[in-house]
Amino acid sequence: MEKWNVGIFVFDGVEVLDFAGPFEVFSRTRLQPGVEARLSDEGAPFDVFTVARRHADVKATGGLQVVPKYDFADAPRIDLLVVPGGFGTRPLLQDEETLDWIRSRARECRKLTSVCTGALLLAKAGLLDGKRATTHWAALDLLAEVGPLVKVDRERRVVDDGVITSAGVASGMDMAFYVVEQLFGKAVADETAHYIEYRRI
Amino acid sequence: MEKWNVGIFVFDGVEVLDFAGPFEVFSRTRLQPGVEARLSDEGAPFDVFTVARRHADVKATGGLQVVPKYDFADAPRIDLLVVPGGFGTRPLLQDEETLDWIRSRARECRKLTSVCTGALLLAKAGLLDGKRATTHWAALDLLAEVGPLVKVDRERRVVDDGVITSAGVASGMDMAFYVVEQLFGKAVADETAHYIEYRRI
Repeated sequence: MEKWNVGIFVFDGVEVLDFAGPFEVFSRTRLQPGVEARLSDEGAPFDVFTVARRHADVKATGGLQVVPKYDFADAPRIDLLVVPGGFGTRPLLQDEETLDWIRSRARECRKLTSVCTGALLLAKAGLLDGKRATTHWAALDLLAEVGPLVKVDRERRVVDDGVITSAGVASGMDMAFYVVEQLFGKAVADETAHYIEYRRI
Repeated sequence: MEKWNVGIFVFDGVEVLDFAGPFEVFSRTRLQPGVEARLSDEGAPFDVFTVARRHADVKATGGLQVVPKYDFADAPRIDLLVVPGGFGTRPLLQDEETLDWIRSRARECRKLTSVCTGALLLAKAGLLDGKRATTHWAALDLLAEVGPLVKVDRERRVVDDGVITSAGVASGMDMAFYVVEQLFGKAVADETAHYIEYRRI
């Protein structure tokens, strides 16, 4: 089976759980149930990696320091792009290099997703125009401002209108399980949730 | 207000959400509600940092690479020690340097906690003798084996018998919220959960 390459964008000021939640869910998904299957990454349906603008350590919210596996230039094909949020998204709204990279990866990927205020970057890149989308509850108005053509959904935790956006921070895990279920079925998603003792919503 | 120093032990093969979940919860807790309070770490009641045996990058489950802030020797006072789990705990069960460090930090800290199979390390260090404790569902028997004097609790998600242990992976977030509530009250814990859109159990 060819694996899905999951690229998770990381940047200074990314919210920890925004990227770590989907990283956990996708990287621990197995099509074979049980603990043994998790001892190695061999049978994993996803190959999950972080990508930053440059090969330099990234400082997430609270000071957690992460070494990105790839940078914009050397990242391999991305099938599933995760754009997380955090206060670090705000300066990136003016960063054409980041927006261009997201646009170009969005064109090639099979699923485009965001967590929390990662949706602001997708909106700014024009990728949510005409689509229903959500973000952190405190950024719903800002999403409408950044993307005047976005149909802001103020109710749902995960919104799939071709592009999959999720509400704040922890809802990125629900987004990830939603995608796992879409691709591999409810049994695989539920068994993975059971493995990591996460109660799906 | 003097901050609580939260030291989170990280090591090769630590499960991502085991350390990232509590890191998120503790580092985003604020006594003042709202989004503005999260723009800086100034008013935070916790100072959260990672600690590894050596100053070298740590490879978590799935390949996430983390730079520890401190090592065993230079870590400051730890008020709240978090020992996460993951398959990387197994070799550490034979590592006297790690067990000694946990023992010495356990003596000085005000709260000793574990997530998932981090409980195996606490048990091996003798810190759970005579106490009720839990771990990942697949490691409950192993916990009883590693710590024959541990009263293994097979039902609860968070067990507080002086030492606070939690069940698998995601339950570390419930453990963290439990501690936040103990220290700063239910309103602060609930508001922080609302901020990160986590539904407490």
